[in-house]
Amino acid sequence: MTERIVRVLETFTADRTTQSATEIARRAELPSSTAHRIVGELIGQGILERDDEGRVRLGMRLWELALRGSSALRLRQAALPHMERVQARIREHTQLAVLENEEALFLERLSDPTAGANITRIAGRLPLHASSSGLVLLAFADPDLRERVLAQPLRPVSAETVTDADALRALLASIRRRGHVVAPGSIESVSTGVAVPVRDHGEVVAALSVVLPRQAPTTEPIEALTSAAAAIEADLGRMH
Amino acid sequence: MTERIVRVLETFTADRTTQSATEIARRAELPSSTAHRIVGELIGQGILERDDEGRVRLGMRLWELALRGSSALRLRQAALPHMERVQARIREHTQLAVLENEEALFLERLSDPTAGANITRIAGRLPLHASSSGLVLLAFADPDLRERVLAQPLRPVSAETVTDADALRALLASIRRRGHVVAPGSIESVSTGVAVPVRDHGEVVAALSVVLPRQAPTTEPIEALTSAAAAIEADLGRMH
Repeated sequence: MTERIVRVLETFTADRTTQSATEIARRAELPSSTAHRIVGELIGQGILERDDEGRVRLGMRLWELALRGSSALRLRQAALPHMERVQARIREHTQLAVLENEEALFLERLSDPTAGANITRIAGRLPLHASSSGLVLLAFADPDLRERVLAQPLRPVSAETVTDADALRALLASIRRRGHVVAPGSIESVSTGVAVPVRDHGEVVAALSVVLPRQAPTTEPIEALTSAAAAIEADLGRMH
Repeated sequence: MTERIVRVLETFTADRTTQSATEIARRAELPSSTAHRIVGELIGQGILERDDEGRVRLGMRLWELALRGSSALRLRQAALPHMERVQARIREHTQLAVLENEEALFLERLSDPTAGANITRIAGRLPLHASSSGLVLLAFADPDLRERVLAQPLRPVSAETVTDADALRALLASIRRRGHVVAPGSIESVSTGVAVPVRDHGEVVAALSVVLPRQAPTTEPIEALTSAAAAIEADLGRMH
């Protein structure tokens, strides 16, 4: 039953925020009667809502339950003021990501109106081996997880994504040594991702990144991200 | 089953982010075996997680499912840049709230390090008749909802909360006329809430507010909030 509820919730995405119960049934691959019953129960609990046209959307109650007691909120609250400072200085996309089920999950994104291309979204995901945030998270992940990811087929996101396991292993070692990554074109040919680790009590819990135009200088972004990560770590330490 | 899952999730709060399955059972008022089974299933789906000490917390997967397709995220994304501008100018708490099940539910809060007392929290709630955000949401709510709230006992949050239905009705009419509320001491005696409505296609969907020290001037905050609300409305219009 829990699995079916999750399958219903999974049918909602950034591009599909309202659906009919029939569409939900088809996309969740559930029998129509089952899907209608689950949707009805979820509406009864406020987890889903009906809009003015009778279509179904995620309810504010789900948002409340998910955020109220979440560690994502704590991390994001500690990071936001420092992300704002990075963004005011660099004026490009500034992002915070965590490791979730072998992918980089983006908790927050601030975007300057003048900033360039960027495919990441809040609550969106990118592969660990392709995005600059993912590379940082993978570099500092448990060795077991790292080797599991390296043993899988490394699918290219762009023509420049590093997909050779040995080359990736060397890149991850250099990230651990330098404390940052500069990843030109690994997601989109027009942009360069720069990312640094964020630690909570010594353990890397997130990656802080900016997405720059491909040829932009990286010295100041690296410095801004490194200072911001240190400030977030200090605030996280005080929040315990 | 859906209701039991919600009862399990409801036991997590800002002050209680990790619990044992036994504590969850007690707080959700579920038989221990039922609670353990539901917790196990939710962990299997990534909705809950175990931390290093074996205690249970909300999973990043729940956060992702709740935000990815949510209208709360869309509203908050439209509002955040303008909230930052209000905060940079007024340098006090700046908040965004929506009407949810006859309460004000706070979607976002930005706080200046030097700002004063404030009991609101992201994903926290306050009564409609007491908080400045709630008063704005109530003033512009469906008349049916408004009369239902006015017919209930209006419990005081502070000594200055308006708890007389006729006085409240007059206050709500003045909010509709003026387009803002100034609510001194209605939540805490040391602070004054100022709030304005935010519309999406003509309908009030949120309240934007600042929490000021009790005696602070309100002219500039009202102006900053009104400008920000207009800018959010323009951005929401473009997002469709």
